[in-house]
Amino acid sequence: MTIHKTDVGAPEVPGVSERVQSLVAEMTLDEKLAQLVGYWVDQGDEVVAPLSGEKVTSTGYADATVHGLGHLTRVYGTRPVDPIERAEWLWGEQRRLQTETRLGIPALVHEECLTGFAAWKAATFPTPLAWGASFDPETVELVASAIGRSMRDVGVHQGLAPVLDVVRDPRWGRVDECIAEDPYVVGTIGTAYVRGLQSAGVHATLKHFVGYSGSQAGRNHAPVHAGPRELQDVFLPPFEMAVRDGGVRSVMNSYAEIDGVPVAASADLLTDLLRRRWGFDGTVVSDYFAVDFLRSMHGVAATPGEAAQIALEAGIDVELPGADAFPHLAARVASGDLPEAVIDRAVARLLAEKEDLGLLDADFSTPPRSVDLDDAEHRALAYRLALESAVLLRNDGVLPLSAEPGRIAVIGPNGDSAEALMGCYSFANHVLAHHPDFPMGFEIPTVRESLAARFRDVVRADGVTVEGTDADGIPAAVELARSADVAVVVVGDRAGLFGRGTVGEGNDADSLELPGLQRRLVEEVVATGTPVVMVLLTGRPYALGWALDSASGPAAVVQAFFPGEEGGPALAALLAGDATPSGRLPVSIPRSAGAQPYSYLHPILGGATEITSADPTPVRPFGFGLSYTTFVREGLAVDAEVRAGDAFAASVRVTNTGSVRGADVVQVYAHRAVASVTRPVAQLVAYARVELEPGETAEVRFTIPASRLAYSDRTLRRIVEPGEVELRVGPSCAEVDEAATVRLTGATYELRPDDERIVGVELRRG
Amino acid sequence: MTIHKTDVGAPEVPGVSERVQSLVAEMTLDEKLAQLVGYWVDQGDEVVAPLSGEKVTSTGYADATVHGLGHLTRVYGTRPVDPIERAEWLWGEQRRLQTETRLGIPALVHEECLTGFAAWKAATFPTPLAWGASFDPETVELVASAIGRSMRDVGVHQGLAPVLDVVRDPRWGRVDECIAEDPYVVGTIGTAYVRGLQSAGVHATLKHFVGYSGSQAGRNHAPVHAGPRELQDVFLPPFEMAVRDGGVRSVMNSYAEIDGVPVAASADLLTDLLRRRWGFDGTVVSDYFAVDFLRSMHGVAATPGEAAQIALEAGIDVELPGADAFPHLAARVASGDLPEAVIDRAVARLLAEKEDLGLLDADFSTPPRSVDLDDAEHRALAYRLALESAVLLRNDGVLPLSAEPGRIAVIGPNGDSAEALMGCYSFANHVLAHHPDFPMGFEIPTVRESLAARFRDVVRADGVTVEGTDADGIPAAVELARSADVAVVVVGDRAGLFGRGTVGEGNDADSLELPGLQRRLVEEVVATGTPVVMVLLTGRPYALGWALDSASGPAAVVQAFFPGEEGGPALAALLAGDATPSGRLPVSIPRSAGAQPYSYLHPILGGATEITSADPTPVRPFGFGLSYTTFVREGLAVDAEVRAGDAFAASVRVTNTGSVRGADVVQVYAHRAVASVTRPVAQLVAYARVELEPGETAEVRFTIPASRLAYSDRTLRRIVEPGEVELRVGPSCAEVDEAATVRLTGATYELRPDDERIVGVELRRG
Repeated sequence: MTIHKTDVGAPEVPGVSERVQSLVAEMTLDEKLAQLVGYWVDQGDEVVAPLSGEKVTSTGYADATVHGLGHLTRVYGTRPVDPIERAEWLWGEQRRLQTETRLGIPALVHEECLTGFAAWKAATFPTPLAWGASFDPETVELVASAIGRSMRDVGVHQGLAPVLDVVRDPRWGRVDECIAEDPYVVGTIGTAYVRGLQSAGVHATLKHFVGYSGSQAGRNHAPVHAGPRELQDVFLPPFEMAVRDGGVRSVMNSYAEIDGVPVAASADLLTDLLRRRWGFDGTVVSDYFAVDFLRSMHGVAATPGEAAQIALEAGIDVELPGADAFPHLAARVASGDLPEAVIDRAVARLLAEKEDLGLLDADFSTPPRSVDLDDAEHRALAYRLALESAVLLRNDGVLPLSAEPGRIAVIGPNGDSAEALMGCYSFANHVLAHHPDFPMGFEIPTVRESLAARFRDVVRADGVTVEGTDADGIPAAVELARSADVAVVVVGDRAGLFGRGTVGEGNDADSLELPGLQRRLVEEVVATGTPVVMVLLTGRPYALGWALDSASGPAAVVQAFFPGEEGGPALAALLAGDATPSGRLPVSIPRSAGAQPYSYLHPILGGATEITSADPTPVRPFGFGLSYTTFVREGLAVDAEVRAGDAFAASVRVTNTGSVRGADVVQVYAHRAVASVTRPVAQLVAYARVELEPGETAEVRFTIPASRLAYSDRTLRRIVEPGEVELRVGPSCAEVDEAATVRLTGATYELRPDDERIVGVELRRG
Repeated sequence: MTIHKTDVGAPEVPGVSERVQSLVAEMTLDEKLAQLVGYWVDQGDEVVAPLSGEKVTSTGYADATVHGLGHLTRVYGTRPVDPIERAEWLWGEQRRLQTETRLGIPALVHEECLTGFAAWKAATFPTPLAWGASFDPETVELVASAIGRSMRDVGVHQGLAPVLDVVRDPRWGRVDECIAEDPYVVGTIGTAYVRGLQSAGVHATLKHFVGYSGSQAGRNHAPVHAGPRELQDVFLPPFEMAVRDGGVRSVMNSYAEIDGVPVAASADLLTDLLRRRWGFDGTVVSDYFAVDFLRSMHGVAATPGEAAQIALEAGIDVELPGADAFPHLAARVASGDLPEAVIDRAVARLLAEKEDLGLLDADFSTPPRSVDLDDAEHRALAYRLALESAVLLRNDGVLPLSAEPGRIAVIGPNGDSAEALMGCYSFANHVLAHHPDFPMGFEIPTVRESLAARFRDVVRADGVTVEGTDADGIPAAVELARSADVAVVVVGDRAGLFGRGTVGEGNDADSLELPGLQRRLVEEVVATGTPVVMVLLTGRPYALGWALDSASGPAAVVQAFFPGEEGGPALAALLAGDATPSGRLPVSIPRSAGAQPYSYLHPILGGATEITSADPTPVRPFGFGLSYTTFVREGLAVDAEVRAGDAFAASVRVTNTGSVRGADVVQVYAHRAVASVTRPVAQLVAYARVELEPGETAEVRFTIPASRLAYSDRTLRRIVEPGEVELRVGPSCAEVDEAATVRLTGATYELRPDDERIVGVELRRG
């Protein structure tokens, strides 16, 4: 077939150094192609990615690297290997590439690092949904900086994080890896992660550019049914922020097709938008096996060589994890189908990245002699983020527990499980699950252990497994609960990949009931009359109407999104009242799977109306979260007018009116009643996490660029339209404490690349 | 706010007569606006449309018609009125308009007519899903012709049917009004309906142009998340066929927004595509209340006047049902916001339609003295279509019933219900439901009555209601079944609108389990050991895995889609073996609501893969249906090559290898392995319903225009791309009896307006 020809532009790469240009000029085609692929040196029978058995190259490592190598794939993150031993090996391999290949260029080493450096013995932090729940970009930036430092210490150059897919359907298993259902929250927190990781000298990689989370019915890799306006206004903004404001150095394509065109084949997205319009000048790497998927999964190429050319021309520079399709580019150059200059462009970008990383002059003579990938700073940050991200969804008064609560029964399959505290891209659940004989390699106290460390009388029974259908253990658990003064029932997910676990990559759901018999377990424990605190450790929001809105539900419900290695202690502290919950929902708690997809970012007709009997209203809205104290938000003051290209001020006072220290997340939503296209009934435009002592007041002053009120008009220009916008302050997207109106004046304003995208936040206490 | 200005083109209307031009030229603005609206003369407290209470004009009829009137809205279809008495009134009103308004132009009278003329005492035919299941455009054309004749006889000029929305999500309540999930089936059968209705001199109205069925999660009026390629390749083709091949005279807008732009505000769709590219020259009428919905529901207009101008400029000519927003156009002309010429354009179109209908010279001196809206021809056609459209989904041998079956227990809430045989746009369920004291007005034997007419010993128990949660009646029903030799359990939907019923307009579902306790009833009856025939009377496909794939399910399952006034006798005949089932599924039978949306028209990654744990595979595929006889399809012969702009031949022999007469639906699917955009794994390109005696063979010869293999390329041109396409013949979209390949040669071909869209079918018997 004829390959769809897009104008991929002149092959020159702007801003590349003379040194890189000279290098490219002297390289053979074999040497160039060697730079454009990875090698998964350690990958064998125990695959950690789907379909990889048949896809990954069978070429031996020595043969594959004779002309050099672009990327080394997951040197630390494929098997449990001691980091210091592994570093010794890696330094040797880099020296070998320096000395035994003609050009002497070391490999760029990439690893997964979403919830921490995905390596044995390394710290595991809370999952991205927890970052979202914290509404705290500063802490996330510190976390990412700590992650980056660990990676850099052992010779890793690029991390395959963060995931900037905006949550659109909780059925999707990879919601576990996402931050929130609001693009601005994703963009600000994702950009903070990028800054943090890159501050340590490790390049971040935006995943998955773009649209992946919109896959049909939340099925992994399924077609995305979205128009260009939704793409521009919902899916793309976080990526734009991370590129323009975060200066990210690498981007990974989405596996998905959008309206019939796979992103890996889209020069419109990978080149025209990303590079020409946004000015991105780093590398685009393929998601694992995505290049040949253009042939085998999408049917837009007849051969691996066609797939390779389509991907390269679209803008994918490096094929990961191995060399499946890109080696066929040699034949396409030889046949005249592909100008070599298109290859040169990708090589120049990759070499520029290596130069930027210092790899072209690196000294690999001295591997690290010792390293602590989970030092005190890691643990403190992990604790802080876990503490900030737990969301209290219900509290009939049982929380915080009294100082002498009597006997605490910890019930449920996640009560005494370390794995239940971690997401699917943690080393433990991603890799170590395949090596059951290996120890965890770092401390991760369970909820039970953490409560036992805090309280005197803690007993335990699982009752059921996460996924199982065996109810035999329920009676004993119920009896234990009956004997106790309070029951902490810890339920939820087990994160894993491709059929292992209940959430995570490939683990999509067509039901949003808690997996297995866990709801029944909770209900039977509640029926004992012992006060019940239900703690959820999950990677997606579940349908919890039965637990939240029924008089016969648990007395308290705490939603934690896989809180990481310090999640147990943090939850124990919150239950004990040593701190108060301050997380806010980064995703809606849904009513049912059959009501999906749903997003809080819906126009009038996307919500409940009298025109439909189906009610998609979530049981708890985006932004919701309770506390042990109370907050009053008042005195909302908003500039009366702003020119559409400028910024305006909005300020509000928030007071801690309760009796304990706590944090509020001040949320400002925009409601525009009339526009030239339909608009969400509420859209978060600004937020600020504010810690307050009892009785303390702070004024939060936002400087909001009018660009926050932009959207795509009918011709797909991103514009700020004159007119009135109501700003609302409240404790969630669905509740309004106060409202005020700003009038956008002047002519319709089309956004420019250098327009401010970020809301300024200033706190004045007292 | 500023109204989005689209180039709506010069206001002249091509092909309008001099007489109409002169009329427009002499009309006052008041007279023009009077022509552009309807009046719902009979509508009072008993509303049959949502939100209408506050929307419909409160102007009295006499005042509203002083300058004339465009449309009279549902004169017969709003309350149960005797057609002859009503005709007497209508003729008088038309004379009054002729004599008491300055221009003397009668009103155009429109009615609903989807499953028959929606008037008291008129015939009620099977619902559109049944048309689809018949795969028989010829019969549908005859049905529509009979409907049109009835309407014309009592002075109705325009019917608000057919619905050409392609089924995309079974949760949507209006699936009840749709034909199929395949655009070609919708297009061919819908066009047949248009031809039939218009052959009687009644204008058809295409609903709902366009995209409505793609609403998010199947919620009525919810935003449509679709890109332009899906729009062009899935949603639009049936409309294009009905416009270009069916010559339809009117089109109604969809309520929905697509990717942020309400269709009622889209000149791109209503003018540029429909008129300029397709050459449509009839009238575009608004769906009821849709004009002001631009303000109240979509928020793209600040006032009713803005809404009116936006809709008019986009291309809506007539506001229905009443004059809510369009009267405000007068002020917009006066203020200079709206050129009067834009109004003239719409008036000219409406007057041209009236001229075409003969209304400008009509004689209303003699109203009809008698009329039979349900004569023998109606009943024969209703029977034929009901017989052809029932789909046998399972048969463990209990069907057909033996000649002396012993006692038959008819169980279930739909077993003895006339309403259960009709769709939501039937007069009975749409209107008469509000008038419980009125009789049905025509004969509609229930399933029990029909079986009792055919068999000696028929007893009955409902067991449960359709929606109820009261199980008290189940034991008696189970006992009755135990006493019988066979149980016919008739379950399913009750069609209605907006919260009345389980399917129909506004009755969207977030579960696809059978409503109420019906599944439990079936399972308890099956448990008696008495052989069970489950008959479904539904308006959507339900999740039937438990009934179809379990050894403990019913012995036989018959899926009928509201089969109309002769549905009872037709089902009795099929159960008795007087005829064999020949319907084929026009929609997939889904696995669960949580797996939606799903369409058989999916690329590889839209189906079950090893990359997702969620399985959307339906429990029975599109095209599936059993029979009492067997068919062999063989000898598939396909032209080896065709130039992309031409047509090619495909022929196959089908033999009735069983012992009874029956009809096969020969289905030809295309599978294109490689294309420049992703393509469905199977797409129906041709079909033919073939009646065969036992032992008889027929050769079906299809002449397939290569345009049937067209799709939209990346620049949205509709093209036929060179390459190989495998054609498959089989008993459903998921099964292949034989396959053969055609090679499309020559250059990529861009479709032209006059390209053939319809497959030629030739039958050679013997």
